[in-house]
Amino acid sequence: MPLARRLFAECLGTAFLLATVIGSGIMATQLAGGNVALALLCNAVATGAMLVVLITILGPVSGAQLNPAVSLVMALDRRLAWSQVVPYIAAQLAGAILGVWLAHAMFDLPLLQLSTTIRTGPGQWLGEAIATFGLVLTILGCMAQAPKTTPVAVGLYILAAYWFTSSTSFANPAVTIARALSDTFAGIAPTDAPAFIAAQLVGALLGLAAARLLWPAPRSAEEAATAR
Amino acid sequence: MPLARRLFAECLGTAFLLATVIGSGIMATQLAGGNVALALLCNAVATGAMLVVLITILGPVSGAQLNPAVSLVMALDRRLAWSQVVPYIAAQLAGAILGVWLAHAMFDLPLLQLSTTIRTGPGQWLGEAIATFGLVLTILGCMAQAPKTTPVAVGLYILAAYWFTSSTSFANPAVTIARALSDTFAGIAPTDAPAFIAAQLVGALLGLAAARLLWPAPRSAEEAATAR
Amino acid sequence: MPLARRLFAECLGTAFLLATVIGSGIMATQLAGGNVALALLCNAVATGAMLVVLITILGPVSGAQLNPAVSLVMALDRRLAWSQVVPYIAAQLAGAILGVWLAHAMFDLPLLQLSTTIRTGPGQWLGEAIATFGLVLTILGCMAQAPKTTPVAVGLYILAAYWFTSSTSFANPAVTIARALSDTFAGIAPTDAPAFIAAQLVGALLGLAAARLLWPAPRSAEEAATAR
Amino acid sequence: MPLARRLFAECLGTAFLLATVIGSGIMATQLAGGNVALALLCNAVATGAMLVVLITILGPVSGAQLNPAVSLVMALDRRLAWSQVVPYIAAQLAGAILGVWLAHAMFDLPLLQLSTTIRTGPGQWLGEAIATFGLVLTILGCMAQAPKTTPVAVGLYILAAYWFTSSTSFANPAVTIARALSDTFAGIAPTDAPAFIAAQLVGALLGLAAARLLWPAPRSAEEAATAR
Repeated sequence: MPLARRLFAECLGTAFLLATVIGSGIMATQLAGGNVALALLCNAVATGAMLVVLITILGPVSGAQLNPAVSLVMALDRRLAWSQVVPYIAAQLAGAILGVWLAHAMFDLPLLQLSTTIRTGPGQWLGEAIATFGLVLTILGCMAQAPKTTPVAVGLYILAAYWFTSSTSFANPAVTIARALSDTFAGIAPTDAPAFIAAQLVGALLGLAAARLLWPAPRSAEEAATAR
Repeated sequence: MPLARRLFAECLGTAFLLATVIGSGIMATQLAGGNVALALLCNAVATGAMLVVLITILGPVSGAQLNPAVSLVMALDRRLAWSQVVPYIAAQLAGAILGVWLAHAMFDLPLLQLSTTIRTGPGQWLGEAIATFGLVLTILGCMAQAPKTTPVAVGLYILAAYWFTSSTSFANPAVTIARALSDTFAGIAPTDAPAFIAAQLVGALLGLAAARLLWPAPRSAEEAATAR
Repeated sequence: MPLARRLFAECLGTAFLLATVIGSGIMATQLAGGNVALALLCNAVATGAMLVVLITILGPVSGAQLNPAVSLVMALDRRLAWSQVVPYIAAQLAGAILGVWLAHAMFDLPLLQLSTTIRTGPGQWLGEAIATFGLVLTILGCMAQAPKTTPVAVGLYILAAYWFTSSTSFANPAVTIARALSDTFAGIAPTDAPAFIAAQLVGALLGLAAARLLWPAPRSAEEAATAR
Repeated sequence: MPLARRLFAECLGTAFLLATVIGSGIMATQLAGGNVALALLCNAVATGAMLVVLITILGPVSGAQLNPAVSLVMALDRRLAWSQVVPYIAAQLAGAILGVWLAHAMFDLPLLQLSTTIRTGPGQWLGEAIATFGLVLTILGCMAQAPKTTPVAVGLYILAAYWFTSSTSFANPAVTIARALSDTFAGIAPTDAPAFIAAQLVGALLGLAAARLLWPAPRSAEEAATAR
């Protein structure tokens, strides 16, 4: 699979992911009349559903990583060439920002925004670490045993993680940066983003370590094919 | 598969789709006590669930396209004979209108209605283009790689698209025309329908172009069989 | 598979189905604070989820028909011996009533009740006919083409049908009779039950006719095995 | 599979299960503004989704039993060596308590709590017995016929069981003990826990008996492999 096609898939997929996160957050808060639980439920269901779709159709093209923390883990696990990590992350970031702007345009909002939503504190940082730990475990566990279950498992994991973590589970540095560019329901103040990203990277590395304990077997041919 | 049987499937399927869109919209608004987010959630869940069912059972018969924009893309992609495009679209339109009237009849409402719900503006047109772009990408991506995942992927895509697009994602010209014939929750004023349909067609064509970049490989025998 | 074991499966499955319909209706109305749309959403999600489970585990034993209208269709379609129709229906009815009583017992309500909820009129009768038509089409379509998809398709169909039909889709004579024995959210006044059942039978027969048009091919060995 | 790895999987999985049950309960009640049905819906959806993920990725490692009542049933059914029952249950309990504390830490609550939520009475005990009966039936039915359906079936079963049982379906002694250690939405007063656990064990044993009637066939090689 040529690199350009894979980068296009990562960019397009992350754009759809962010358009969904931001767009459904705007729609839900506009309609929910102040009921935040209902807004978050709609936001979470839309995001989880979209992730299943994106990983189903883009997984065979680029891995549908859509997440710099996942790309880093894949490189450490020898599933992504180190030379491709930076292009992958750049494509994800560009797509994420494009997705935010598309959401703003669809809802007739100013394209350029900065979030003012405070999301900080040790509890939320722990939440991000746990969320990303579990995300990496989910991905590597599926890939090691039943690659075809990955799309549904990741979608359901994120649906659950919106609710069980205090941070609503960003679990993705590109998503975090892009959400800092939207002063809507799903936003995060730019000054709060670096600590979220740091926590995500810690969680991702711990997730890789746990996955190596749980699924140490050499990768099968099927997996290797799926991982590209 | 004889054409008559396939047209029956397209007509019946689109009727069930519209009965679900309109009927669940009526039920939800009747019960939701003014909470529009809750009504839209019920509307979206019912529609997504029904799409999974319809594509599962009718896909092997007619492709379960249920959507003139999709039939056009299939013809352009040589998966539907050009001579069958007009019959397909006619069957979809007839089914869609039948579905709306069945919903009205079930809820003891006048059969013949015209919507007065304003849905217009560049934001919503962009929403329709993006919604249809993503729908075509979802369908072609599944067909190119894992045809059996199509029903669930399309159902989940539409569930998400209800929320992340500002237009609540009609993404279907037959649905748009039929929804103009219902002055209920899911309606659209007839004067607003043409711009929605134009945006859908633009999105569908862009979706086909993107799909050709992402999945250029010649179609396999399995796909060809699925596409009939 | 011995008949006794199959009848046990039908009885147990219908008991769980009714315990879910009635029990989740009670729980949802107790907690929903008068928001009927929210109560119906919880009721519908629980019922759909339980149907997927029951058909998954009991389908290979008895067909998991759990529904006299479906058993009748199966007999007409030569998938169930006529001599077993009455035992099947008796087991379903016994299970349905047991399920209602278990729900009442779990929620500390009197076991013996009669519903006072009025559910009548041509709109709702049309709703029941359409609901059962679609249910039969879903079951026969899955069995004709992809039997393993039946549990999920039926669960999702009922989830959608709760919302798109004006009657909330009973679509099952045993369920209708049993729900007449519960004066809770999901009840139906006993005097309204016969018309619902008549509409269900009409819908089921039309569904069988439509299925024969759509999937006329002789049943494959795989299907025959699944149908027992 | 070495025992240590399996115990790690049971501990980690039960920790994620409890973090989800407790964490999503806290999040949902904080956001739901007193709407208990909405809070329970979010709680149930998150728990069901997480169970699908955990059983998908940990099932091939340890069986992903995550439940002392299930481990007991597996030992009685000769699917788990008796010598491993105590280590399994210890790992589940340790994980469950860890999960509760992680949830408290994420939401900046005191780690050590005791619940004051009264959950008692014959109705709720019947609810727990039925809930666990159905859970065991679901697991054994899937394992006997279609092991790959287990994760989704268990997740959907628990989603339904939150709603149809008066107790909201703990159905798990480790979960019961751990929830006694959290004075939040999902808690249970410690004095009420023993009766819940007794009811769960009764239900589990009856579930095993029913499963032996329904699926008496000797276990196939595939099953045996799945059961480890």
